[in-house]
Amino acid sequence: MLKLKFDKNGLIPAIIQDEKTKNILMVAYMNKKTVWKTIKTKRTWFYSRSRNRLWMKGEESGNIQIVKKILVDCDKDTILILVKPKGPACHHGYNSCFYRNIKGRVISKRLFDPKKVYKK
Amino acid sequence: MLKLKFDKNGLIPAIIQDEKTKNILMVAYMNKKTVWKTIKTKRTWFYSRSRNRLWMKGEESGNIQIVKKILVDCDKDTILILVKPKGPACHHGYNSCFYRNIKGRVISKRLFDPKKVYKK
Repeated sequence: MLKLKFDKNGLIPAIIQDEKTKNILMVAYMNKKTVWKTIKTKRTWFYSRSRNRLWMKGEESGNIQIVKKILVDCDKDTILILVKPKGPACHHGYNSCFYRNIKGRVISKRLFDPKKVYKK
Repeated sequence: MLKLKFDKNGLIPAIIQDEKTKNILMVAYMNKKTVWKTIKTKRTWFYSRSRNRLWMKGEESGNIQIVKKILVDCDKDTILILVKPKGPACHHGYNSCFYRNIKGRVISKRLFDPKKVYKK
């Protein structure tokens, strides 16, 4: 097992890529515990910096991500996780969180209405 | 132009993806200036946290990356850049910096000898 380099907040960025389409779905942060939970459960677990808690992708929406491969970069400070997603990754209703170009133009189709999926 | 969210050090992570193969090549950090230089020059520019300076990918190795698309995630705190690379991205001689799985097993072929490409 490679010794990952967590930042001073104990976090490491994790890139989530669709194993099949190779689209980048999202980027979120993991701490030691959620790296471990991701390996053990084969579901993606993250640490939310804004809500200050652990969360599993899909815990509310049902759009879980089944872990297929976990890769680490040369500096050991970024993780790349290939997954089979059960549904769109972005809570705005898009397949990928990267649904806009830098000019702000939406380049993807919205697949669901967030208000119907996320009840809060 | 979307207003990017830089962290408290003025940086934002940039994921570099091969436009054609859709492989993730590397992840590095940009500040405001290198985001701007990347847009203007259509080459990838980063801010090195360890060397505390701006650098252009390929400035030493010649393995530049030609910028094709720049996408931004829903939180506006990560950039995804699709590129046409002129050569391997990783300074260890692999096509991608993600050449190992989390167990440490090398899953890619080494394409060049780093000692011959990087003179330092």
